[in-house]
Amino acid sequence: MPRDTASFLNTRRRRNALALPARAGGGTGAVLALERRLLAWLLRMAGTPPMNLCLWDGSLVGPAQAEHTVTLRDRAALYALLRNPNMAFGDLYASGRLRVSGRLDDFLTRLYPCLERGRQSQPAWLAALWRDRAPKGASEQDARLNIHHHYDLGNAFYRLWLDTAAMQYTCAYFEQPDFTLEQAQLAKLEHVCRKLRLRPGQTVVEAGCGWGGLARYMARYYGVRVQAFNISGEQITWAREQARREGLDDRITYIEDDYRNIGTGAASQRCDAFVSVGMLEHVGPENYQALSAAIRRVLAPTGIGLIHTIGRNRPAPINGWIERRIFPGSYVPSPVELMRLFEGGGFSVLDVENLRLHYADTLRHWHDRFQAHREQIRADYDDTFVRAWELYLAGSTAAFQAGTLQLFQVVFAPADSNVVPRHRRDLYVGSALDAGGARHE
Amino acid sequence: MPRDTASFLNTRRRRNALALPARAGGGTGAVLALERRLLAWLLRMAGTPPMNLCLWDGSLVGPAQAEHTVTLRDRAALYALLRNPNMAFGDLYASGRLRVSGRLDDFLTRLYPCLERGRQSQPAWLAALWRDRAPKGASEQDARLNIHHHYDLGNAFYRLWLDTAAMQYTCAYFEQPDFTLEQAQLAKLEHVCRKLRLRPGQTVVEAGCGWGGLARYMARYYGVRVQAFNISGEQITWAREQARREGLDDRITYIEDDYRNIGTGAASQRCDAFVSVGMLEHVGPENYQALSAAIRRVLAPTGIGLIHTIGRNRPAPINGWIERRIFPGSYVPSPVELMRLFEGGGFSVLDVENLRLHYADTLRHWHDRFQAHREQIRADYDDTFVRAWELYLAGSTAAFQAGTLQLFQVVFAPADSNVVPRHRRDLYVGSALDAGGARHE
Repeated sequence: MPRDTASFLNTRRRRNALALPARAGGGTGAVLALERRLLAWLLRMAGTPPMNLCLWDGSLVGPAQAEHTVTLRDRAALYALLRNPNMAFGDLYASGRLRVSGRLDDFLTRLYPCLERGRQSQPAWLAALWRDRAPKGASEQDARLNIHHHYDLGNAFYRLWLDTAAMQYTCAYFEQPDFTLEQAQLAKLEHVCRKLRLRPGQTVVEAGCGWGGLARYMARYYGVRVQAFNISGEQITWAREQARREGLDDRITYIEDDYRNIGTGAASQRCDAFVSVGMLEHVGPENYQALSAAIRRVLAPTGIGLIHTIGRNRPAPINGWIERRIFPGSYVPSPVELMRLFEGGGFSVLDVENLRLHYADTLRHWHDRFQAHREQIRADYDDTFVRAWELYLAGSTAAFQAGTLQLFQVVFAPADSNVVPRHRRDLYVGSALDAGGARHE
Repeated sequence: MPRDTASFLNTRRRRNALALPARAGGGTGAVLALERRLLAWLLRMAGTPPMNLCLWDGSLVGPAQAEHTVTLRDRAALYALLRNPNMAFGDLYASGRLRVSGRLDDFLTRLYPCLERGRQSQPAWLAALWRDRAPKGASEQDARLNIHHHYDLGNAFYRLWLDTAAMQYTCAYFEQPDFTLEQAQLAKLEHVCRKLRLRPGQTVVEAGCGWGGLARYMARYYGVRVQAFNISGEQITWAREQARREGLDDRITYIEDDYRNIGTGAASQRCDAFVSVGMLEHVGPENYQALSAAIRRVLAPTGIGLIHTIGRNRPAPINGWIERRIFPGSYVPSPVELMRLFEGGGFSVLDVENLRLHYADTLRHWHDRFQAHREQIRADYDDTFVRAWELYLAGSTAAFQAGTLQLFQVVFAPADSNVVPRHRRDLYVGSALDAGGARHE
């Protein structure tokens, strides 16, 4: 499959108000005393992480001995970092002008709690200066561009490092710590199906179906009919082909449309279950009521729903570089923000599970597989792309490991429904690798 | 044990700004056409429940055939209802001036969803007129009076209708639908202990320990040391005696003090687990930050906590009559309000379980046992007390059955702790009647 090798950074560059200053030639002269003081201040603002900085003239800022060394290769990089470290760190890393000694994920796992502490003592003007000042919106029009930006990079690219069992680009469920990625992703699908208490003949609406793996799992092992929505053209093409290959296309309809249009068609019917795995991150809190209204329209009065989403412990904007370069328009909610979706929609929250450490494990698998295909990806895209994605995967691993990010699965039902599970014991009968096991009890 | 038979309604009457008008003698004359129209309007405002009203002259308002008939025995009762139905219904019922045909809990289970619908179309001025205009606060001083009001009614009274296994005045866990109340309360204690992942030798702080049943269960079956706080003098006296009788007093310290003082003593140490079952309802959202600060002070960095509380699907004040007559100063949070406690305290939410229908079952058991001892309770207190408590128990059953109230168990940990359970499978190994079973895996 031909890949749009130019698309990754070019589309980003166009909207990059903070374009990096060009590297100032080869050598950039001796480091000034003022510059050393500014960098020492920057380390303090970052919560004094266990690191030092090695500058272009070979001199160090910070302790002589440190767990990690970050090398800045030119003076312009220094000023880019001072101007907005949240944005510049990623861009400098991707361009190779900033290097990190040792394992990147180890470094970031140590760095993130320091940044968290640092942020709490930063003056307000600094937080304002360093925030992402032009995050993308997530209107229906924006959403198409946002989703295209990330998910339409090429199916072949994602197939290199996602699981081969179900092409899941969301948190897996390591029921046993020695599960392979494939086992853990199938276990996740099974865990979701059990939480939905699916029964043969039921109907399910899925919002944001990725490559359609969950829809096929539900149709195959639980005998349900699925309407699965997605606005990524590449993903939905692949999902349809795969359903046809697996003989499941009579039970699954993949619909290329926005979640806001769920349940608005003249022929649309109420479903027994609503599920959305890894879409809420792209919805934005300003659209939660539109999402809950869509669920309300489509879910039967006795239906059950599940939303699986990245979250955090307190409200905060997403990291500026991730928003610009990786996931435009994304936002991950705190528990309070997440609960507003359900309160506003007239739902009752039945069950919340936090699978944060499973996402760290999942990301380690993805990172390792990405590394195993590094040369191929570099040939198909370029060095900058590879380093940016390494940073994104390592940074995400670190964020889930350090608790900067959480992973919530929320089960809910219409507030006036009494057709709700009494307990969760049946989720744990046998292994989550017993596909459809809950059905056969 | 001598009982303070005068205490129940007298203490309430003193702060009752909406004292009922006295019954206007025996007969009260023919019902006026205007009065019939006002009552028809009242039924519409109540969401048109499946009922009619039988008035003191034998005439009906509402459909001739209805599932339930509510009888008003005098004209003054009519005007009390119009002035504030939320307050007057309970007081009129307790005094015998308002009667309900059929089972009270069935009637209320049908009524509550109608009231909910009715409230949504009520004009704002009416909601303002009918709200509880002087709810009690929950400051440290108020809390002592609030708790004394309800929990110090006499241990012998509560022993008549609570379970005999552990004197639990909170939602039980009917792992199997045919569990006795005793089994279900022990299963609840076991479920809580498993969620806390207790191990022998650990230390636990409990806030709001009731008669101390959970503390004794944890000490006996999980080999932990417990500091259990409570401000009900009657309860704590009983709890200490019981711990002594069971030989557990070397492992449990019952402390008569407010949750706000947890972790403030010079000798106070960090604990491995924090637990609070059925106290948050008395804390009030204005004090959630004081509670989360107390937990933060006392919980070890690798500790785990559990809060078990009544909640609701959206924010709303507690029913005025319940707040006045039964639980002064009480408030039950919505998911958003509940999550604020954890976000504000720097905690990560690990697990939320909604056990609403278990509370309806629990209340049915309590109601039945209360009925079985009705005559004894009437002799010890009086008719008004008995009817008020019947209404409270039946009304609470209905509220949990109809989904007006929820029951949330929330497990949480300090935000930066990675000593968190990977999954919940171990909660469901064997039966929750296998006391301490999780320990022996």
